[in-house]
Amino acid sequence: MVRTIELTKRQEHILDIVKENGPITGEQIADQLGLTRATLRPDLAILTMAGFLDARPRVGYFYTGKSGVQLLTENLQKIYVKDYQSIPVVVNENVSVYDAICTMFLEDVGTLFVVDQNTILVGVLSRKDLLRASIGKQELTTIPVNIIMTRMPNIAMCEREDLLIDIAKKLIEKQIDALPVVKKSDKGFEVIGRVTKTNITKAFVSLGDE
Amino acid sequence: MVRTIELTKRQEHILDIVKENGPITGEQIADQLGLTRATLRPDLAILTMAGFLDARPRVGYFYTGKSGVQLLTENLQKIYVKDYQSIPVVVNENVSVYDAICTMFLEDVGTLFVVDQNTILVGVLSRKDLLRASIGKQELTTIPVNIIMTRMPNIAMCEREDLLIDIAKKLIEKQIDALPVVKKSDKGFEVIGRVTKTNITKAFVSLGDE
Repeated sequence: MVRTIELTKRQEHILDIVKENGPITGEQIADQLGLTRATLRPDLAILTMAGFLDARPRVGYFYTGKSGVQLLTENLQKIYVKDYQSIPVVVNENVSVYDAICTMFLEDVGTLFVVDQNTILVGVLSRKDLLRASIGKQELTTIPVNIIMTRMPNIAMCEREDLLIDIAKKLIEKQIDALPVVKKSDKGFEVIGRVTKTNITKAFVSLGDE
Repeated sequence: MVRTIELTKRQEHILDIVKENGPITGEQIADQLGLTRATLRPDLAILTMAGFLDARPRVGYFYTGKSGVQLLTENLQKIYVKDYQSIPVVVNENVSVYDAICTMFLEDVGTLFVVDQNTILVGVLSRKDLLRASIGKQELTTIPVNIIMTRMPNIAMCEREDLLIDIAKKLIEKQIDALPVVKKSDKGFEVIGRVTKTNITKAFVSLGDE
């Protein structure tokens, strides 16, 4: 189980001293702080047990290089796509833009995945793509979605076992709202889920919940 | 600064004992575990300094009731709306739906805030609202946005000093993508920012970064 603690100013100070001067003995740290070795003992114990410092007999304390941030990262490294993914909504590549818009409203999603007759991923449609098409001059009921979709291989994808934090980064970098969760088959990629900024927001909320 | 630590099995065990039997002396805990008081001293130090246990002279250790989850919550309670908000994009209530759609593409946002002549918030337009209007039968260049917008007082809002985690919860509960950040004036609410699921996703990513 991962717990969070708040280091005291003195503990942060000790970390700084060891970072700069390590390996360094407890006595030497105490000298620098103008405190007794006994006063520092609990602080050194907590820093060692928390993994920030390591101690070697007759050498002294040294900094492990693990920052609090890295340790927090270790926590985030336990949240996977599969823990937060949603069910994907797919349309066939031959449906009209108008029908795709209706599907988007019926299913209340912001992204549709487009598949071929073998249910293999061939494209992605965002609400933005559909809005752009809807103010164009074309007849929405006759143009098929494969004219306006983002198509393979320009589709960012992810897998169930990916870390959610990595996918969150990808969404930000690529400035998109959702990624398909895929499974590779011999014909291509099957869409088995979706990860959206809503899923990430839920994960963020859950960090504050039981 | 908040740090994350992983408690050992023995430390979790001590927590359980104190939860059930506290207040309890170090000796008594040692007895229950079949260990010496000296062996336990560093564990008790770390649990006390981390805020899980409290010790009172001649009484013993007791459980503070702070779980790791609560302590993590304390971390999230330091992230405010103002730390992650974006610049708002506003349109006047008299502009046409067509112009609003163009603004949305030009500014590359998913939500527009609608203001009156005093730049006071009167409505919200999501990409979904605009997409719905665009497949309707009306002429987009002639209908004003105030016909299709979500209007006051049905608008969820937030303030700079709100906790981001609370706003993330609100976005999930209300199933919306963005909230205006407002400042109350004598005429109503001025829009001074926006918080979106993108901002929340960035905050989530930042938990894993320096």
